[in-house]
Amino acid sequence: MIKAGIIGATGYAGGELVRLLLGHKHAEIKWFGSRSYIDKKYAEVYQNMFELVEDRCLDDNLNELAKQTDVIFTATPQGYLASILTEEILNQVKIIDLSADYRIKDVSTYEAWYKIEHKSPQFIKEAVYGLCEINRENVKSARLVANPGCYTTCSILTAYPLVKEGLIDADTLIIDAKSGTSGAGRGAKAPNLFCEVNENIKAYGVASHRHTPEIEEQLGYAAGRKLKISFTPHLVPMNRGILVTEYASLKKIGGAYPSYGQIKAVYDTYYGRERFIRVLEQEVCPETKWVEGSNYVDVNFKIDERTGRIIMMGALDNLVKGAAGQAVQNMNLLFGEKESEGLELVPMFP
Amino acid sequence: MIKAGIIGATGYAGGELVRLLLGHKHAEIKWFGSRSYIDKKYAEVYQNMFELVEDRCLDDNLNELAKQTDVIFTATPQGYLASILTEEILNQVKIIDLSADYRIKDVSTYEAWYKIEHKSPQFIKEAVYGLCEINRENVKSARLVANPGCYTTCSILTAYPLVKEGLIDADTLIIDAKSGTSGAGRGAKAPNLFCEVNENIKAYGVASHRHTPEIEEQLGYAAGRKLKISFTPHLVPMNRGILVTEYASLKKIGGAYPSYGQIKAVYDTYYGRERFIRVLEQEVCPETKWVEGSNYVDVNFKIDERTGRIIMMGALDNLVKGAAGQAVQNMNLLFGEKESEGLELVPMFP
Amino acid sequence: MIKAGIIGATGYAGGELVRLLLGHKHAEIKWFGSRSYIDKKYAEVYQNMFELVEDRCLDDNLNELAKQTDVIFTATPQGYLASILTEEILNQVKIIDLSADYRIKDVSTYEAWYKIEHKSPQFIKEAVYGLCEINRENVKSARLVANPGCYTTCSILTAYPLVKEGLIDADTLIIDAKSGTSGAGRGAKAPNLFCEVNENIKAYGVASHRHTPEIEEQLGYAAGRKLKISFTPHLVPMNRGILVTEYASLKKIGGAYPSYGQIKAVYDTYYGRERFIRVLEQEVCPETKWVEGSNYVDVNFKIDERTGRIIMMGALDNLVKGAAGQAVQNMNLLFGEKESEGLELVPMFP
Amino acid sequence: MIKAGIIGATGYAGGELVRLLLGHKHAEIKWFGSRSYIDKKYAEVYQNMFELVEDRCLDDNLNELAKQTDVIFTATPQGYLASILTEEILNQVKIIDLSADYRIKDVSTYEAWYKIEHKSPQFIKEAVYGLCEINRENVKSARLVANPGCYTTCSILTAYPLVKEGLIDADTLIIDAKSGTSGAGRGAKAPNLFCEVNENIKAYGVASHRHTPEIEEQLGYAAGRKLKISFTPHLVPMNRGILVTEYASLKKIGGAYPSYGQIKAVYDTYYGRERFIRVLEQEVCPETKWVEGSNYVDVNFKIDERTGRIIMMGALDNLVKGAAGQAVQNMNLLFGEKESEGLELVPMFP
Repeated sequence: MIKAGIIGATGYAGGELVRLLLGHKHAEIKWFGSRSYIDKKYAEVYQNMFELVEDRCLDDNLNELAKQTDVIFTATPQGYLASILTEEILNQVKIIDLSADYRIKDVSTYEAWYKIEHKSPQFIKEAVYGLCEINRENVKSARLVANPGCYTTCSILTAYPLVKEGLIDADTLIIDAKSGTSGAGRGAKAPNLFCEVNENIKAYGVASHRHTPEIEEQLGYAAGRKLKISFTPHLVPMNRGILVTEYASLKKIGGAYPSYGQIKAVYDTYYGRERFIRVLEQEVCPETKWVEGSNYVDVNFKIDERTGRIIMMGALDNLVKGAAGQAVQNMNLLFGEKESEGLELVPMFP
Repeated sequence: MIKAGIIGATGYAGGELVRLLLGHKHAEIKWFGSRSYIDKKYAEVYQNMFELVEDRCLDDNLNELAKQTDVIFTATPQGYLASILTEEILNQVKIIDLSADYRIKDVSTYEAWYKIEHKSPQFIKEAVYGLCEINRENVKSARLVANPGCYTTCSILTAYPLVKEGLIDADTLIIDAKSGTSGAGRGAKAPNLFCEVNENIKAYGVASHRHTPEIEEQLGYAAGRKLKISFTPHLVPMNRGILVTEYASLKKIGGAYPSYGQIKAVYDTYYGRERFIRVLEQEVCPETKWVEGSNYVDVNFKIDERTGRIIMMGALDNLVKGAAGQAVQNMNLLFGEKESEGLELVPMFP
Repeated sequence: MIKAGIIGATGYAGGELVRLLLGHKHAEIKWFGSRSYIDKKYAEVYQNMFELVEDRCLDDNLNELAKQTDVIFTATPQGYLASILTEEILNQVKIIDLSADYRIKDVSTYEAWYKIEHKSPQFIKEAVYGLCEINRENVKSARLVANPGCYTTCSILTAYPLVKEGLIDADTLIIDAKSGTSGAGRGAKAPNLFCEVNENIKAYGVASHRHTPEIEEQLGYAAGRKLKISFTPHLVPMNRGILVTEYASLKKIGGAYPSYGQIKAVYDTYYGRERFIRVLEQEVCPETKWVEGSNYVDVNFKIDERTGRIIMMGALDNLVKGAAGQAVQNMNLLFGEKESEGLELVPMFP
Repeated sequence: MIKAGIIGATGYAGGELVRLLLGHKHAEIKWFGSRSYIDKKYAEVYQNMFELVEDRCLDDNLNELAKQTDVIFTATPQGYLASILTEEILNQVKIIDLSADYRIKDVSTYEAWYKIEHKSPQFIKEAVYGLCEINRENVKSARLVANPGCYTTCSILTAYPLVKEGLIDADTLIIDAKSGTSGAGRGAKAPNLFCEVNENIKAYGVASHRHTPEIEEQLGYAAGRKLKISFTPHLVPMNRGILVTEYASLKKIGGAYPSYGQIKAVYDTYYGRERFIRVLEQEVCPETKWVEGSNYVDVNFKIDERTGRIIMMGALDNLVKGAAGQAVQNMNLLFGEKESEGLELVPMFP
């Protein structure tokens, strides 16, 4: 059995990790870390776990955790892990970090967008960006996995094949993203109250959201050069789900735009054998509801010859493939488990 | 492998059956019956099943199904199964009926509340009312299981121990029930449109809802006499979940109302060993969100000495324990499977 | 022009007062009191008021307000007004209190349910309970109006005619109430976050909610004796609206239950001429959506001869008739305005 | 009094027209046309109108309406008005058409996107596109007003000043629009059921939505040349509201991008005196909730120097400024009323 510890077990991503690990055949949770609820029964914080989890919440003691567990998931605020991580810990235990601390390779970019000083830049280089479908082999041997952001996972996977193959002009990429409210976390803030979110939609973090440089870096690797893209997140009155609508200018091949079949073939080449990416059939638009509760990303596209653009769409559950599910997928890669173990969840509808 | 067939596979309860059976180790679906979508790919109707179900929808041919499968689930309109069921079919296959056709023992009561003629009353007597926690032993050897209604399951289980033990005056029982909208089915009717349900709550079927006689009959067996109760359903702007709030006069024992501990002990006696009924801790009110996606029923109660009443509360997911989950639980009983096989779903929050 | 001041202008009830008073022909708001937002532009707190309100928020200075205004609305926490009200203030200005401080005549009952000491019990007796349709004449000459609670207004008006006429056994009265989330206020608490409320329903404050004694007192006046009733509130995933479903045993008249027509006639006698109470047509159940944004209370009932009970239903918008609308209605009575001035709002659907 | 008739009074836009006209001082509704509900009391269809509207629904008799009324609002399916409109009718009565029949000047474009033959192209030229803030003077003397679409109004007004002033490269314009579900109408279709829309978001009509050519035509007039733009609508789980997020490349002026202040000044020049367009303060993103129930359009923008783009945002209530409110605004222009009469509605929050 893989012994897992969670730091930040009472946030929404932490709670989802618990849900998923309870269904994993070869993992057990040994540590429910939650600074806010020390000594409280976990099932009193998340009543859905009543009779399923008997443990009490523990403090966030990374050194102790490193001794007792095989893998630590950190679902913590930005900067936390960077401030306490040591070589000694990394020698003892695998770490899957759900925060952004080790996602961005360029420290100055990280510090500029997150407006905090990075306290352990020496680990950035070795950290593997845990977007499983793209970095699978590197993840397997990592000590430290930087689990991607929710918007990021959806944004990258939706455009990746076309950027990689040079079929779109990546500088024209515009990502309009829509997220359910669980992405905002469980902190008690007035803007996240039911009455403020319900019956409402708004953009936020326009031209300044922190997931932007993460998307730019990863798609930049695919493009083979630095990119600047537009990314606009929106808050949608629903609990779970991210939908991205991405716009880019299609490149002509031999004077003509590629056909539906040609683009479809590219997507299929990249994703046809992927367990968790579904390229939908022609004319079917992804909907967040169709992936809810599961680790799937649904993607599709529409060519608009009128404007010379392609509209790419992707949907995932921000708490599963956008956070805890991908973290478990990374854990499976790290420990030689079947990649889908614990993740074969059928989407729940309605 | 248990070969299962579903008639009415494209309704919400049918869709949920598919979700649950896909996760069942010893069952496989051989027939996706849906008169409205014959020859259409099932995954085109329920896009969440894309790449999970490759089958196409078939007609509702009960005789053919009886030959090809071990168990048939009928998630069909009232009166349908009653109009086509035969002794020959029952000799070939187990039937779990999610409609109301065989739930009520008294034909005239059925006909009065449902306003249709019962076409095969000869099977009513042998049909076993499939409320697993109460009729477990009878279910095991049944040919025909009448799977209980969603409101009914929640209403009965919440009050059952106190009625059975005579701790409340069952004639004072008032059940105020609140349901998510999936209970209304997938038929395209204006009152179930998003804009009509959202930001709204209403009672309906006041003093006339068809689940009333079903509750009365079953709780009547517990009480040892005929009962008349008040039952009022309400439509709540959410997809899943039923909450019941039940009121009854407590009986005094030796001149005093029973204590919290005494009542709790009764609930624990009945439900303490039940895998799918959770008696919550003192002062914790059941919430539908804590059971969403799972087969749990959460129950609790509050004694109000001021008024001499007890307020009992119960919550379940209407599509799982209130329909498809209970149907699978019944299937497990019928075929000697572990009762929880395919149903060990952790509730999803948020 | 009536010069109005609001203390607590940035809560939801305060915000609704602003919305209503902006549409009132003979009132103007001179003071937007909000201790949390002093000096901030009111329209920055409530962006819907952009270009409609230019004022900045002021401190809660009751003495200064008494000098500058004709009427003060206090939408403040329990105990606040009681702790600062003086005879001098009451001699200068009319006060309409949206808190519970002066609603309950018996101080010990108030202190027992609210668990705070009442700091100015000397004003309780003269305070008029501002349920306009019942206490209209007393309101007109009051100095201090205790504006009723949201649940209370709906609960009382729904049952009042039958209690007053002795047609039901008031001791059997059970009120099952369902409220939108704005009733919980704008304070940033985790249980009111979108993800906790959405897709969820629960009871709370079972057998202990503070509106219980207020309902008991007022219906007790109607019954001519002290009453004890059951009241259970529920939190519904919607912004606005309260629905009550009330159960009581009907009394027989001359050996028979009263007919629909007889009960309807009673309701019509009491409410037929009321501008803001609509007795719906037979078989139409009140829905909160049909009164949203307006000052209406919709009521109706269903006789259940099978159980000998009557089910009464009522719906209102908790922020309008349940709070700010009724406060404006009381203001109109106090100042001799047309009772419906500023309140002739057509319910908004959908 | 202006005598108004409505054809299609029982759709959502028709219902909103009734709500608004009930509050208009100089208009009265003489005809509630609804083919589906002939002879039924209007208030039975829309129970919010109980005691406010006593009329019964009538058939859609345009000739009779022309005689009895001063203005006819047609909230009807595409092609209906075009199929019955005559010169004689236009000589008798003003017509404000909420359908798309006369919005697009080029018949072939209309027929290509709507896939129906236009039956009265002879009236297209004289029809005035009723976007009040832009075509105010032309509306005043029109016989036939083509009331703009909901997406269209929001999309055009958000970008108009910058297109008109040539500050953006209009060919790069991408409009990502999000709409509440009332935009889909009251027809009973499965995709609009509560359970299908709730907890879900999706794009639809990608690169093919009918509002595209309408936006292109109107913004093309502003640009002084033909435009092709990308427009993608999304369905959001809320009743009312449209939010558009628009992306375009900013043009440099003298080698530098215009500053916030320069762009703000342009918006203020165009909209500073407009009663119903609010240019928000810097960094404030429009939210649909802030305009709900009102005739406002809230707009704002953000310059992204990193990418050389500007992100423009706009929000309105699709049933008010996006349909019925703008129709009433047009009526006011046609009849010399104050433009805001009946429309001075304060947005409702929460």
